[in-house]
Amino acid sequence: MIHKIAILGASGYTGAELVRLIATHPNMKITALSADRKAGMSMGQVFPHLRHLDLPDLVKIDEIDFSTVDLVFCALPHATSQSVISTLPQHVRVVDLSADFRLRDLDAYEKWYGKPHSAPELQEEAVYGMTEFYRDEIRDARLVAGTGCNAATGQYALRPLIEAGLIDLDEIIIDLKTGVSGAGRSLKEGFLHAELSEGSHPYAVGGVHRHLGEFDQEFSKIAGRPVKVQFTPHLLPANRGILATVYVKGDAQAIHDAFAKAYGSEPFVVILPFGEVPSTRHVRGSNFVHLGVVADRREGRAIVVCALDNLTKGSSGQALQNANLMLGHEETAGLMLAPVFP
Amino acid sequence: MIHKIAILGASGYTGAELVRLIATHPNMKITALSADRKAGMSMGQVFPHLRHLDLPDLVKIDEIDFSTVDLVFCALPHATSQSVISTLPQHVRVVDLSADFRLRDLDAYEKWYGKPHSAPELQEEAVYGMTEFYRDEIRDARLVAGTGCNAATGQYALRPLIEAGLIDLDEIIIDLKTGVSGAGRSLKEGFLHAELSEGSHPYAVGGVHRHLGEFDQEFSKIAGRPVKVQFTPHLLPANRGILATVYVKGDAQAIHDAFAKAYGSEPFVVILPFGEVPSTRHVRGSNFVHLGVVADRREGRAIVVCALDNLTKGSSGQALQNANLMLGHEETAGLMLAPVFP
Amino acid sequence: MIHKIAILGASGYTGAELVRLIATHPNMKITALSADRKAGMSMGQVFPHLRHLDLPDLVKIDEIDFSTVDLVFCALPHATSQSVISTLPQHVRVVDLSADFRLRDLDAYEKWYGKPHSAPELQEEAVYGMTEFYRDEIRDARLVAGTGCNAATGQYALRPLIEAGLIDLDEIIIDLKTGVSGAGRSLKEGFLHAELSEGSHPYAVGGVHRHLGEFDQEFSKIAGRPVKVQFTPHLLPANRGILATVYVKGDAQAIHDAFAKAYGSEPFVVILPFGEVPSTRHVRGSNFVHLGVVADRREGRAIVVCALDNLTKGSSGQALQNANLMLGHEETAGLMLAPVFP
Amino acid sequence: MIHKIAILGASGYTGAELVRLIATHPNMKITALSADRKAGMSMGQVFPHLRHLDLPDLVKIDEIDFSTVDLVFCALPHATSQSVISTLPQHVRVVDLSADFRLRDLDAYEKWYGKPHSAPELQEEAVYGMTEFYRDEIRDARLVAGTGCNAATGQYALRPLIEAGLIDLDEIIIDLKTGVSGAGRSLKEGFLHAELSEGSHPYAVGGVHRHLGEFDQEFSKIAGRPVKVQFTPHLLPANRGILATVYVKGDAQAIHDAFAKAYGSEPFVVILPFGEVPSTRHVRGSNFVHLGVVADRREGRAIVVCALDNLTKGSSGQALQNANLMLGHEETAGLMLAPVFP
Repeated sequence: MIHKIAILGASGYTGAELVRLIATHPNMKITALSADRKAGMSMGQVFPHLRHLDLPDLVKIDEIDFSTVDLVFCALPHATSQSVISTLPQHVRVVDLSADFRLRDLDAYEKWYGKPHSAPELQEEAVYGMTEFYRDEIRDARLVAGTGCNAATGQYALRPLIEAGLIDLDEIIIDLKTGVSGAGRSLKEGFLHAELSEGSHPYAVGGVHRHLGEFDQEFSKIAGRPVKVQFTPHLLPANRGILATVYVKGDAQAIHDAFAKAYGSEPFVVILPFGEVPSTRHVRGSNFVHLGVVADRREGRAIVVCALDNLTKGSSGQALQNANLMLGHEETAGLMLAPVFP
Repeated sequence: MIHKIAILGASGYTGAELVRLIATHPNMKITALSADRKAGMSMGQVFPHLRHLDLPDLVKIDEIDFSTVDLVFCALPHATSQSVISTLPQHVRVVDLSADFRLRDLDAYEKWYGKPHSAPELQEEAVYGMTEFYRDEIRDARLVAGTGCNAATGQYALRPLIEAGLIDLDEIIIDLKTGVSGAGRSLKEGFLHAELSEGSHPYAVGGVHRHLGEFDQEFSKIAGRPVKVQFTPHLLPANRGILATVYVKGDAQAIHDAFAKAYGSEPFVVILPFGEVPSTRHVRGSNFVHLGVVADRREGRAIVVCALDNLTKGSSGQALQNANLMLGHEETAGLMLAPVFP
Repeated sequence: MIHKIAILGASGYTGAELVRLIATHPNMKITALSADRKAGMSMGQVFPHLRHLDLPDLVKIDEIDFSTVDLVFCALPHATSQSVISTLPQHVRVVDLSADFRLRDLDAYEKWYGKPHSAPELQEEAVYGMTEFYRDEIRDARLVAGTGCNAATGQYALRPLIEAGLIDLDEIIIDLKTGVSGAGRSLKEGFLHAELSEGSHPYAVGGVHRHLGEFDQEFSKIAGRPVKVQFTPHLLPANRGILATVYVKGDAQAIHDAFAKAYGSEPFVVILPFGEVPSTRHVRGSNFVHLGVVADRREGRAIVVCALDNLTKGSSGQALQNANLMLGHEETAGLMLAPVFP
Repeated sequence: MIHKIAILGASGYTGAELVRLIATHPNMKITALSADRKAGMSMGQVFPHLRHLDLPDLVKIDEIDFSTVDLVFCALPHATSQSVISTLPQHVRVVDLSADFRLRDLDAYEKWYGKPHSAPELQEEAVYGMTEFYRDEIRDARLVAGTGCNAATGQYALRPLIEAGLIDLDEIIIDLKTGVSGAGRSLKEGFLHAELSEGSHPYAVGGVHRHLGEFDQEFSKIAGRPVKVQFTPHLLPANRGILATVYVKGDAQAIHDAFAKAYGSEPFVVILPFGEVPSTRHVRGSNFVHLGVVADRREGRAIVVCALDNLTKGSSGQALQNANLMLGHEETAGLMLAPVFP
């Protein structure tokens, strides 16, 4: 069974990553690719690493005949997604990679994104795309909202611990380091090679990063009471990879056990031996999550470290995994590529 | 049909790259992995990016039962390969990734590698592993000698031109830039991050790089007379990728046509539109070769630029492509992974 | 007044950095350079970036005539320093860049460094080299112990806050990111470019990093009671620079005020406007410390971020600043070089 | 004697580099800094690595009182320089870092830059800024035109050889590798970290790079007949540094001798021992040029390799060296900073 796939916003990094992953997928065929400003170009012109593939040229969204499309990956900018998805025919399943449908509470959306939601009814039906935790809902969903890449990384480290009541909910600190591809192909001074390489700095410090909206929503939901973490992202001089170093108060061994229980049968979550820590370079280009736990010298404190590739498991790989569920394919189809190291 | 595979020297980068590629190969199963000093360790300890795979532990070579092995990838250091391959049972097919069997002339071997060859009879039967040019011989070979990664890059740019008599054979200059993974995991000061990053320099300048032995052998054979190119490799602050900028005297358009003719039906060689040039980042992690031709402002001169990934098409990917031919599998099996960008 | 300087262990990065800084120092002349295994070579061979300087060749330590030397920078490996410094004539002032004399408590030394101290009487007279906090003692010292580079970074962020009683002493978390040059020129697999670039990971997690010995000593001394911080260092794919992200419970504005008070007249410590954060790239190659404070969204919590160059302010620059004090020169001599960006 | 300095276009990398170098200059004081779009900001906001300096805020050019200014460094974009410099009072000496006054032939200017020159009379009096070769003219010039950074690198390798008639003028190939800071702070997709890091590619291939105008002009002038080199620049994943690998037909030893003769007393040009080659990382952040010569295995061919820092010796350092000459200061003032390695 081959499903027909459209990717909207294919000229960005997450769009290209979807094409890369779907290239060897046995049950999907890309039949439409859109890019507003680059309409008319071939994908190989926009992304020469995809030159060898036989792909449709980039078109504008309104040139796509959605009647033959089974599933749309929507890799459009935030806010644009809302209006575009509203216009898609009902038979089309949608995996959205933007932030538009992640927050269930419309006030929270407005607070974090600065304007009212324009498609509140869609918001209501959207399922949050943390595959391992919403698998059943995703299978049946028409619209799945891909998570923030930082938000995913922090949640892999924390959800089972909050669920199991293993840590002090008022003392969670997430110190996160991320590669620059998460910022997309946008032309900002700070993302130039000359500005970014050979150094590091924090950004959005003090509780202003938008992915906090997802942490607040999900952690509070699990805990059954408000949970507000501290979260400081840093930019790394690297393209791919997120590393979350999470400081918690709780028993390290119990935390490691909880991970084994929560993720023991997950195909993409690898629990490291107790006391070992992961590295972003060991998940590069793959859909795998590496998760480690270390006990601190101070009794009752633990450090949880989570690594994933922001473009794959943090975004396009997650999206494909969810699409596999939605379309009834093997969940791991197209996703078992081993990480690329060195 | 599943063939049983052993990888000797699996603790180096080419060994790990073979494992990465074979991980999703439908017709191969890795049944033995050797590593002298790291025997006893699991592959996941040595290469944490391969943690998720179910692989045999590393053993010493003499612990391997070769009676059930169909094909051996030999990723051992130069010179060691000769003695090890000599001891393998006759039924075992061998793809050697070292330099030991690349040169047909034993004097040339001694000149470039500094000591006499210890397995001259094996040398005689070995087939040179430039897949696109020795396909038939490789299919039937018991022993295939993988090319040097730099040597492969230069040959993709030049073989069809020499064959077709399109360029001045006395005026070929190959200015090559290579990532550092070609040097392997060896502990040398110059390969430390602090020594290498944020800079570039040439090495083995003036005609002393060993891959010249391969250029001399192959180009002279094609031309039917001695051909000696100039060759200057440079080290890039990057891990993967080789870029060869080749200066020739000849007609650029005729050169482009010759490439189209030579490589038109090759699955892994991509000819860029006339006037465009490739980048190493667009072949990263893949088995693809990108090849471009530009006419110089000076009449009768052309610049040919070739990019490939040294660990994949330059080494382990090439080896797997050859093994596919030897074992009768689809030539592209396990190798259609799209490049990883960014 | 020109003082004669010897640098022991000049073939490492901190040795080379001392030479770089002293190259334009108006009151110092390098008259001896030692390197055990590289004795006999010129400095330009070992460090080609210093080719243009007129320097003495590298010799073994016992070839140096210390009778004409005024001050020795000792950039030898840990443990070696102890035995070498013990043999130096009494008139020679010493700035030691190793860890040998940083810890005042001999049991603490043995605990963190795994063997008994071999020069306890020297240990007693050594002054800890945090210039801004031990200026008077350093001026009169015969032996100054340079701080750990990570230890310095954390202390700039925390000493004034502990001193002023502004933060909860039981809730200090230092999440630190460091470039690889701090590891020196040592040949370890993990410091190869291919292993390190394009990724990040924590190391020495859970309270086992030796610089904790310095944190414990200094913070407990200031507080007048035991203080044990949490400390997690991470390796960055960058050569120079340390960034410490420090999580404290206390009032952010009061913290900023305390910094202004403590460092207001310091020539090398730059306090950023409230709410701004530093970047390692903006102190690269310089002796400056950049220090920022941000209030967290959670009342009563603050994030302090400190950046410095590990080879300069974290090691050789600090050493030169201390030597200037010891020899009666302008404290900033040779050290006012602006950071190199980009 | 302190001269008053204005820097126009101070918000770009060459502007910042001028500030960095002048920061410790004993005879210059920066009294005005201009930046069109960033007027009103402090230099520390635009370039946080210069925070510690006491500098005038950025203003628009027409807000500067040039009556008290002795010398202007003009780091404006090409074409803008022409119109601005035309309006400066006659007493002001000018070092222009743009391409506007490099080409003496107005037709050549129009050919390479695509439009007629708007200040032909200024063009006539401008002196070309290759310090070592135009020292006397520069001393007396009112307007000095800084060279292209690539153009400077190639000329250091070739001028003495052409002058001495040592090489075949029709067979010169310059294969050049440059860091990305040469492109300035301009927001182009190709200069993003995610696009550039971990790879390399050639650009402006085939004889279309504008710096060829300078090569043609200078080499033809020296030779007394038209000289047209081949020139292929490549972009490196590094911020600073240019490496030119120059292929010539001539005697390598004679070439080395010619360099010794031409540059023997130059303060910033370092000739490497015969057979050794330079690296960009060993000149980083400095005004030094490293120059090496190797004989090829093919009789009568040599490889000349030249390395310099594009922002320093290739641009702002060169400009300051020229300004020192113009104002009668020590030629090396502010420029003896040793390279920063690692």
